[in-house]
Amino acid sequence: MAERSEALSVGVLHGPNLNLLGQREPEIYGGEGLEGINRRLSELAAALDVEISFYQSNIEGEIVDWLQTTGSHFNGLLVNAAAYTHTSIAIRDALHAIPVPFVEVHLSNIYAREPFRHHSHLSDIALAVVCGFRGDSYLLALRGLASHLRAL
Amino acid sequence: MAERSEALSVGVLHGPNLNLLGQREPEIYGGEGLEGINRRLSELAAALDVEISFYQSNIEGEIVDWLQTTGSHFNGLLVNAAAYTHTSIAIRDALHAIPVPFVEVHLSNIYAREPFRHHSHLSDIALAVVCGFRGDSYLLALRGLASHLRAL
Amino acid sequence: MAERSEALSVGVLHGPNLNLLGQREPEIYGGEGLEGINRRLSELAAALDVEISFYQSNIEGEIVDWLQTTGSHFNGLLVNAAAYTHTSIAIRDALHAIPVPFVEVHLSNIYAREPFRHHSHLSDIALAVVCGFRGDSYLLALRGLASHLRAL
Amino acid sequence: MAERSEALSVGVLHGPNLNLLGQREPEIYGGEGLEGINRRLSELAAALDVEISFYQSNIEGEIVDWLQTTGSHFNGLLVNAAAYTHTSIAIRDALHAIPVPFVEVHLSNIYAREPFRHHSHLSDIALAVVCGFRGDSYLLALRGLASHLRAL
Amino acid sequence: MAERSEALSVGVLHGPNLNLLGQREPEIYGGEGLEGINRRLSELAAALDVEISFYQSNIEGEIVDWLQTTGSHFNGLLVNAAAYTHTSIAIRDALHAIPVPFVEVHLSNIYAREPFRHHSHLSDIALAVVCGFRGDSYLLALRGLASHLRAL
Amino acid sequence: MAERSEALSVGVLHGPNLNLLGQREPEIYGGEGLEGINRRLSELAAALDVEISFYQSNIEGEIVDWLQTTGSHFNGLLVNAAAYTHTSIAIRDALHAIPVPFVEVHLSNIYAREPFRHHSHLSDIALAVVCGFRGDSYLLALRGLASHLRAL
Amino acid sequence: MAERSEALSVGVLHGPNLNLLGQREPEIYGGEGLEGINRRLSELAAALDVEISFYQSNIEGEIVDWLQTTGSHFNGLLVNAAAYTHTSIAIRDALHAIPVPFVEVHLSNIYAREPFRHHSHLSDIALAVVCGFRGDSYLLALRGLASHLRAL
Amino acid sequence: MAERSEALSVGVLHGPNLNLLGQREPEIYGGEGLEGINRRLSELAAALDVEISFYQSNIEGEIVDWLQTTGSHFNGLLVNAAAYTHTSIAIRDALHAIPVPFVEVHLSNIYAREPFRHHSHLSDIALAVVCGFRGDSYLLALRGLASHLRAL
Amino acid sequence: MAERSEALSVGVLHGPNLNLLGQREPEIYGGEGLEGINRRLSELAAALDVEISFYQSNIEGEIVDWLQTTGSHFNGLLVNAAAYTHTSIAIRDALHAIPVPFVEVHLSNIYAREPFRHHSHLSDIALAVVCGFRGDSYLLALRGLASHLRAL
Amino acid sequence: MAERSEALSVGVLHGPNLNLLGQREPEIYGGEGLEGINRRLSELAAALDVEISFYQSNIEGEIVDWLQTTGSHFNGLLVNAAAYTHTSIAIRDALHAIPVPFVEVHLSNIYAREPFRHHSHLSDIALAVVCGFRGDSYLLALRGLASHLRAL
Amino acid sequence: MAERSEALSVGVLHGPNLNLLGQREPEIYGGEGLEGINRRLSELAAALDVEISFYQSNIEGEIVDWLQTTGSHFNGLLVNAAAYTHTSIAIRDALHAIPVPFVEVHLSNIYAREPFRHHSHLSDIALAVVCGFRGDSYLLALRGLASHLRAL
Amino acid sequence: MAERSEALSVGVLHGPNLNLLGQREPEIYGGEGLEGINRRLSELAAALDVEISFYQSNIEGEIVDWLQTTGSHFNGLLVNAAAYTHTSIAIRDALHAIPVPFVEVHLSNIYAREPFRHHSHLSDIALAVVCGFRGDSYLLALRGLASHLRAL
Repeated sequence: MAERSEALSVGVLHGPNLNLLGQREPEIYGGEGLEGINRRLSELAAALDVEISFYQSNIEGEIVDWLQTTGSHFNGLLVNAAAYTHTSIAIRDALHAIPVPFVEVHLSNIYAREPFRHHSHLSDIALAVVCGFRGDSYLLALRGLASHLRAL
Repeated sequence: MAERSEALSVGVLHGPNLNLLGQREPEIYGGEGLEGINRRLSELAAALDVEISFYQSNIEGEIVDWLQTTGSHFNGLLVNAAAYTHTSIAIRDALHAIPVPFVEVHLSNIYAREPFRHHSHLSDIALAVVCGFRGDSYLLALRGLASHLRAL
Repeated sequence: MAERSEALSVGVLHGPNLNLLGQREPEIYGGEGLEGINRRLSELAAALDVEISFYQSNIEGEIVDWLQTTGSHFNGLLVNAAAYTHTSIAIRDALHAIPVPFVEVHLSNIYAREPFRHHSHLSDIALAVVCGFRGDSYLLALRGLASHLRAL
Repeated sequence: MAERSEALSVGVLHGPNLNLLGQREPEIYGGEGLEGINRRLSELAAALDVEISFYQSNIEGEIVDWLQTTGSHFNGLLVNAAAYTHTSIAIRDALHAIPVPFVEVHLSNIYAREPFRHHSHLSDIALAVVCGFRGDSYLLALRGLASHLRAL
Repeated sequence: MAERSEALSVGVLHGPNLNLLGQREPEIYGGEGLEGINRRLSELAAALDVEISFYQSNIEGEIVDWLQTTGSHFNGLLVNAAAYTHTSIAIRDALHAIPVPFVEVHLSNIYAREPFRHHSHLSDIALAVVCGFRGDSYLLALRGLASHLRAL
Repeated sequence: MAERSEALSVGVLHGPNLNLLGQREPEIYGGEGLEGINRRLSELAAALDVEISFYQSNIEGEIVDWLQTTGSHFNGLLVNAAAYTHTSIAIRDALHAIPVPFVEVHLSNIYAREPFRHHSHLSDIALAVVCGFRGDSYLLALRGLASHLRAL
Repeated sequence: MAERSEALSVGVLHGPNLNLLGQREPEIYGGEGLEGINRRLSELAAALDVEISFYQSNIEGEIVDWLQTTGSHFNGLLVNAAAYTHTSIAIRDALHAIPVPFVEVHLSNIYAREPFRHHSHLSDIALAVVCGFRGDSYLLALRGLASHLRAL
Repeated sequence: MAERSEALSVGVLHGPNLNLLGQREPEIYGGEGLEGINRRLSELAAALDVEISFYQSNIEGEIVDWLQTTGSHFNGLLVNAAAYTHTSIAIRDALHAIPVPFVEVHLSNIYAREPFRHHSHLSDIALAVVCGFRGDSYLLALRGLASHLRAL
Repeated sequence: MAERSEALSVGVLHGPNLNLLGQREPEIYGGEGLEGINRRLSELAAALDVEISFYQSNIEGEIVDWLQTTGSHFNGLLVNAAAYTHTSIAIRDALHAIPVPFVEVHLSNIYAREPFRHHSHLSDIALAVVCGFRGDSYLLALRGLASHLRAL
Repeated sequence: MAERSEALSVGVLHGPNLNLLGQREPEIYGGEGLEGINRRLSELAAALDVEISFYQSNIEGEIVDWLQTTGSHFNGLLVNAAAYTHTSIAIRDALHAIPVPFVEVHLSNIYAREPFRHHSHLSDIALAVVCGFRGDSYLLALRGLASHLRAL
Repeated sequence: MAERSEALSVGVLHGPNLNLLGQREPEIYGGEGLEGINRRLSELAAALDVEISFYQSNIEGEIVDWLQTTGSHFNGLLVNAAAYTHTSIAIRDALHAIPVPFVEVHLSNIYAREPFRHHSHLSDIALAVVCGFRGDSYLLALRGLASHLRAL
Repeated sequence: MAERSEALSVGVLHGPNLNLLGQREPEIYGGEGLEGINRRLSELAAALDVEISFYQSNIEGEIVDWLQTTGSHFNGLLVNAAAYTHTSIAIRDALHAIPVPFVEVHLSNIYAREPFRHHSHLSDIALAVVCGFRGDSYLLALRGLASHLRAL
């Protein structure tokens, strides 16, 4: 993979209901909570020489606000928009408007679930997609994103 | 119907624009305001030995927040998500994530209206659906929910 | 709800296979038989000062006959057309032809079942819809219908 | 056009991501910022003897709040709901609930863009639609709306 | 038109709810009852030297029975299957199985009504279709059918 | 049928390729030419005390012209728009714009032919439809139209 | 195949228009009448040590009645619902309600016919499907069903 | 808006049935005739220092001819293709072939009308779209077009 | 059934993954291996005086090769194309090109499985279809095919 | 190819906007004008001993006229209906009505363009289709047509 | 056409079942075998100063192999992928991956056949398409391809 | 991530055209060849204490063979079926038949490409999906798979 010389900043966006992680349907999303994932991400980020920060909101428009103000200052983003993946053109527009590459992340394999989760408003403007590895999806996406950013 | 021995708690969720009730299109929604419905619900709840509380918001994500924090502590919910019924997977996910049965309620007969109101993101995970009785829809739903909860 | 002064008459239509109730798929329809439901309806009707009568048939055209001859003399109808809900324009036409408001009733939550049960030929001309409370669906529909008729 | 005798009030609603205007995809939306558009609108409004005010939000439900409280007091509205044009029944319901005519406005020609931007939840209840003239779309819509309101 | 030398026999099939004619939605179907139509058909049949008989049933399967036993002995049929036009493959199969040409008749212009009345299971195996002239639809169809049969 | 007291005027519109009648696909359209049909129509019109005139064009816009100028002066129209039935909104608009009732006529049974002939842009604004009797379709339509006009 | 020790009972259901067999479209259904098929089935049943009985009706609801009362007492059923295969949810519901496995039988290869015969409301709850062998379809289905029942 | 220094030429294309304006369905199109609109356009054009000319035809191919010969010499076009908006690829091709920007204009709000008027063959190659302001639609489009042309 | 005088030859084609039979998803396909089925087929073939041979391949084009060279020399074929049933037009073309009737065979009831297994590229050119009897499907198909071939 | 003994006559139909060839979108249609193509066609026709004539019109109905009167006298036709390929049933009907084989020709590869150019109303009644060779498409089509006509 | 100076190489790919040509459905594909076509192609290639070679396979993946290894060395290709035209993205990908222009060829007019033959996975990346001239389709495609290659 | 104690074996399946990697469309797939990816995978596998082997084929059925024989002996698989992802039910069936978890891998972001690449026959039975990181997609998938297998 790419060298780890220069420092990169990566923002992590957790969408609606992800604050419930660990309690909500563990057979689908796994038993690990959001703090656990964030802690593991922080450790990996340190190892990869990446500065990382986290944001969670249940409100579509607040996510748009965050993308415009905070999100646009990172070198890259990990985006798990959860339910808004399938319904929000506003988040898509915000992601499209800021010149920051992002990886779409899902805990579950969304293609193995209900048909209304098979279409994403974000995939076609994403750099890449990782889904189905539960909490590891974020970690792998971080590795892939860092590697991509360093290769530019 | 089921006996009325033990006390039950029921939360009532009113979605977007329902705060306008009584002013907005009375030929569809009836002339009764939201307070009128809430007052009638309180009276019936008292008669059924049910504790009841109410929440209204126009913001999808605030409804998700309320469901996660307040909503999850009731024995059951009456949910009239109004327009979000047809567009919100986030509210569906929140309802799915909390182990509380809910009845989907609509003032109007949504199947007699525009095609985009015929599909609900909530119906298939609801306990039951009541629509078309205007304000009485809530009262009947409360009776049915209480009866169901007491029969468990 | 509306006052209970004048006597109302309500007809109850049970469609195909409902005579099997209690034996057929109890996990979907509940363990209560049709007589049980009719008895509970009779008790509630008495309490609401409503005259009630019942009709069950497995034959689409006989249901049309009944609606034309008997059904048209009630003040209101409870209609559970069962499978014919989804396939019969003839029953729709008969209900449309007689000037009697009706409530569409289903024992199960039809929106949580197979896709071919999600569309009803009756809903858009019904006064209201109640589904998912098993036998209680009829009782709630009777309350709502009586209240509606007395409010006219 | 209609005479300019009586004073009219017009509200202008800017939806999600429009606060980014001038930075975001200038080849589609033009290089003019939102303040530029608002200033030009204010000048034209003064010339047309129209009082004008502006509102921007990225949050669907806040837009619903604004329409219910502030929006309902204008003689007419210019509505550019941006991404919510295509996904929000809640904003449609709010616009339908208040007795204020509105013109749907878009900077870009939405019919020349992605298919998911071709359908609007607002068009069929709008007075008129103007799109594709970038910032001038608002100015033309203001002229047309004022003319319509004075002709009533 | 064709000569009127030899005697022809024509059967007239009236489908479900047509026995209500004159009472049911007169703005769509006209104020004339089924007996009125039959009497006018009898007069025209006499004038055209055609023997005519009539059958009405609300039961799909009885119509199939009648087509197999009685219907198959006529030289031609006038078929107004009403609601079964749109739902019955069984009546189509019976009409296809008997070697008797038929004209599809409707009182109303079914193409100006609800979408579910726009498709007919019978049209593609019919000789001809007449709709929209109310009671006169039958008379015109009888003339056309007699002319066709005499021209063979 | 209606009395034949007052004189009526009826215009007959023959659309594209109908000038070929008798030569083109006789197994579908019959062997009778357009003059034959017009002659038979003239005879029937005389018997019904109706003044009749004919127009044929292969050009969509000329048909629109004729409907606006000549067509709008008749009491009623017989319209066989042939191929334009399925593709022309301009002819529909012209027919809608003039206050003259018309009967849609087809020689063949269009529902027994290719799928692209099953939809008509004219049927839902027509008074009635007659198809499948070959040349007799026009004669029956004339009888029905005259009867309708005299009954007004 | 399975041993033929214990006696089995099998009911055979013939749906609408099958009483016409041998007369109706012999190029599709073959020239053998229903009695011929029943006689051959009786002989094979005797050879397989199976008690067999037959029922034919053209009336959807009577078939539902028969399935509920008589049909539910067999060990297995052969079901040729003919046209109702494609339109009847009521028969599907009746077959689903009784705990008797059934084989769906068709004389013709329904997949080589009109598109509206390609979908069956019964196939997904059937044990197996046999079609296209004309009268032999029943005989093969009986062999398969007996073998299946004895293997349980 | 842009300065008004250099002279511009603009052609106005009125499609089929627009010659009927003022007579045809005034509740949809307004009571103003085509000459009235043209006169108002001429006045505004003079004020904007624009040379303007008009063309109306009911014939699709003549419109194609006009676009190729006359239309291609203007600096810009206002195009109200009326019914041909929804059916003509030939007019689209002609507009695409000539290097002249055009604004699509409609008197009515086509998105509030029948579904077949929701799709336009012209919108995706238009500069902009204005609809719903009745006659004012043209005036606003002229202002927008002139402004656009001067800004080039 | 038909007499068993003359010798017939029948080829059996087993498509992709059928070599795994007995190991793969036994709850769907049964626990019997392919050799077991072939052995039972050989026994029945001997009893029916039919020469039988077997071919299995996982490669679409090799199946086409086999049909062209070997398959075309049989009197009839049993074809279980497995997954290629739903995706291969090449196998369909090969079966269509050789003048050999075939029966489509499936172990499972494909109509009770995933939607992508409901459509077959082979059914409409097959003589008949047998599915759902697991290994017995082949045996019944062999009986039906032999009977059909002897009846020619 | 076939021998070149007897003289053949071939008509060439150029549809709407083809008179612009050479000016319009040369990257799609090539830089050669219509006269250039016609001249090359004339040379090849002479070499093939074929009499050739040309017709171009932008008006759908004039093309129908030409096909009926002139077009029907050729031994074969080359038809490039351009935009009318995708919208005109009238031209299809005219081509179907005259007993002259035709080859459908397109300059561009219509399958590599917008989706609305992928369907042709003419292809299924054409002898053959050639597209994508720009002007050479006509020359190849002429060779193929002449060869076909001489082989009859 | 283009000059014939430099030598060109062209590969011809024949897809599945084309080895059967002459035997398979001659009413669709003609009576000429593949060798006949190849011989005629060789003669024409010699006349056009083109080196030509041929490949036929029934196996999708072998065709991919051939395109990668052999196919990529030609100046151009004639591709008749037969059934794989409609189902193979792998062959499309291989054709897309090699920088060699190709002409799609079909013996029959695929647009006059079953709907599943109307869509091609290859057309939108082909240079041109020729179909319907039976064996001559290849010859015309070769002429067109050579002309195109020499014009580059 | 999970501990790296026990040795795991992982098979890597490369589908059709992936042998061209590095040459074919580098702007989509990157400039790295398949050997480069395999070498990087081998290094990472060694670091993760995983035995790894590779297989590439262009032939659908050979991939099925490999999955049945070789593929079923690994602890997990990385599957990049390339074009067969979208067309092969046979590969899906083979993957489903063997009890080995697999990760679906794509070099490009398939959701940002042509619509026919948006549906995968494999995703809903995959453990997880990684796409869009070019060669790194495989590396990340290997990490995720190893972590998953060690966590079991």
